[in-house]
Amino acid sequence: MEQQKKILCVGLVCLDIINVVNKYPEEDTDSRCLSQRWQRGGNASNSCTVLSLLGAPCAFMGSLSAGPVANFILEDFQKYCIDVSLLSEHPQCFLPASMVISNISTGSRTILHMNRNLPDVTAEDFSKVDLHQFKWIHWEGRNAEEQVKMIQQVEQYNSMLPQQQKITISVEIEKTRKPLYQLFPHGDVVFVSKDVARDFGFESAEAALKGLYSRVKQGAVLICAWAEKGADALGPDGVIIHSDAFPPESLVDTLGAGDTFNAAVIYTLSKGGSLQDALTFGCRVAGRKCGFHGYDSISKVFDDMQPQSLF
Amino acid sequence: MEQQKKILCVGLVCLDIINVVNKYPEEDTDSRCLSQRWQRGGNASNSCTVLSLLGAPCAFMGSLSAGPVANFILEDFQKYCIDVSLLSEHPQCFLPASMVISNISTGSRTILHMNRNLPDVTAEDFSKVDLHQFKWIHWEGRNAEEQVKMIQQVEQYNSMLPQQQKITISVEIEKTRKPLYQLFPHGDVVFVSKDVARDFGFESAEAALKGLYSRVKQGAVLICAWAEKGADALGPDGVIIHSDAFPPESLVDTLGAGDTFNAAVIYTLSKGGSLQDALTFGCRVAGRKCGFHGYDSISKVFDDMQPQSLF
Repeated sequence: MEQQKKILCVGLVCLDIINVVNKYPEEDTDSRCLSQRWQRGGNASNSCTVLSLLGAPCAFMGSLSAGPVANFILEDFQKYCIDVSLLSEHPQCFLPASMVISNISTGSRTILHMNRNLPDVTAEDFSKVDLHQFKWIHWEGRNAEEQVKMIQQVEQYNSMLPQQQKITISVEIEKTRKPLYQLFPHGDVVFVSKDVARDFGFESAEAALKGLYSRVKQGAVLICAWAEKGADALGPDGVIIHSDAFPPESLVDTLGAGDTFNAAVIYTLSKGGSLQDALTFGCRVAGRKCGFHGYDSISKVFDDMQPQSLF
Repeated sequence: MEQQKKILCVGLVCLDIINVVNKYPEEDTDSRCLSQRWQRGGNASNSCTVLSLLGAPCAFMGSLSAGPVANFILEDFQKYCIDVSLLSEHPQCFLPASMVISNISTGSRTILHMNRNLPDVTAEDFSKVDLHQFKWIHWEGRNAEEQVKMIQQVEQYNSMLPQQQKITISVEIEKTRKPLYQLFPHGDVVFVSKDVARDFGFESAEAALKGLYSRVKQGAVLICAWAEKGADALGPDGVIIHSDAFPPESLVDTLGAGDTFNAAVIYTLSKGGSLQDALTFGCRVAGRKCGFHGYDSISKVFDDMQPQSLF
């Protein structure tokens, strides 16, 4: 039974229109893309895709508009067998697209975001969720004040259960927005981005972990990925754990690499893998992902990369 | 009965996604748009929108993919009550969007075009059309060789009918591509662009009309709009007719102004208005259109601009 429980990711879903170019367009010119693709995006939504490709049953919770873009997104969730029963629809809202310019000559991705006029999931929405179906819930830091209340609901639920049945709580603090920093003491696993680490004045993952660990709750794990320098993690034993990056032969598409890393780490830990296993697997899957467009090939490369020692 | 007959426009439909920014994005950064709008584009498609807003029953003929963009476009056609029964669907093709980055600080427009992998309408497709339902057919010059064959089908059809029941044929020669110039002798009304006029070495609308009139068929009308200088027309009586431009108080959006001019001219002539009426009305509607985003306000301004003398 426990094996069938799902991983829930709470956060954003949006549409990315990815325009592949071989030269970044200069202002005020007309140029032609090599190709264009539409991709469901958003951190929590991307992490669901990767979890699903790795073989973990998962669900997404977030808000969606109505209309053709929403239909595209719903169909894509379904294609990846992601449970969308917790999606809240807002028919009066328009879901805009983020425009991504992906330069194959450099691997760079330039993103033009749009303000979504969609309300985030609230603690009240969350109170209606049947928590029994989940073994792990991950929050992409957004409306932090409400998210803290959601997490408190899970803590309340956990307090009535034996250790092995408790839901693990993870949070991602990616954007350098002060209100998000209240999430630090609320995760069993806390992902902090390089951007946030730098915002605090740290110039390496190790320095960030040491400097920020006092903010997390007792017993929690703090994880910080640092692009081509790999990722570090720090748990309650005070030992810094490190994995190098695994860059692909050629850098093709770094969009969603962070979401891929998070998903692979959550996947490993939720299966009972060690922190070192999780970090290494996270770096390997994320590194491989940068070698191809989108996520689909993750399932293909997964077989030859899963170490015997794991699980 | 004759009053119920429709105007058919044959040509391109595409999607324009217009991203408004106040600073052109640097490569490999994340930034935020001020606003974004989706707009059905393509010359023939835009002219249908304007015809419909002016109150003329009309239809669009062109090709479309399947998928979410096609759904958006279909819904938008329907919103404007444009008959899309002649749209050919190509489920295996993907209809990409053209991305426009519009920088309000500099006025620059950066466009990322996509190749549409959609076949144009062929003479064979056109042979299946029931011509009885139309009083006017307009071609946006594209696959000219096929388009000449379509026009010949209409001429054949017309040859069996009394004068007042014949379908009027118009063509637009907008792009400076040599193969399009074979369309000159095939329209009762021929729209030639400033770009094409210049490609032939003419530096004014009047010079272009005089120089190019020998290319049109006997009895035809040749029309050339010249942006802020208004538009000129020349018919079989050899008299050049002119209308000044009617610029708006402030220039807001010139996208589709030419398509608006064509639609307003066709509208007037199809109702039996004079060439002078048509030209003046074309310039007035197109000028007003440049004062607002998109086309919707055309119907609002139409009432106070329609002269009593017309129709």
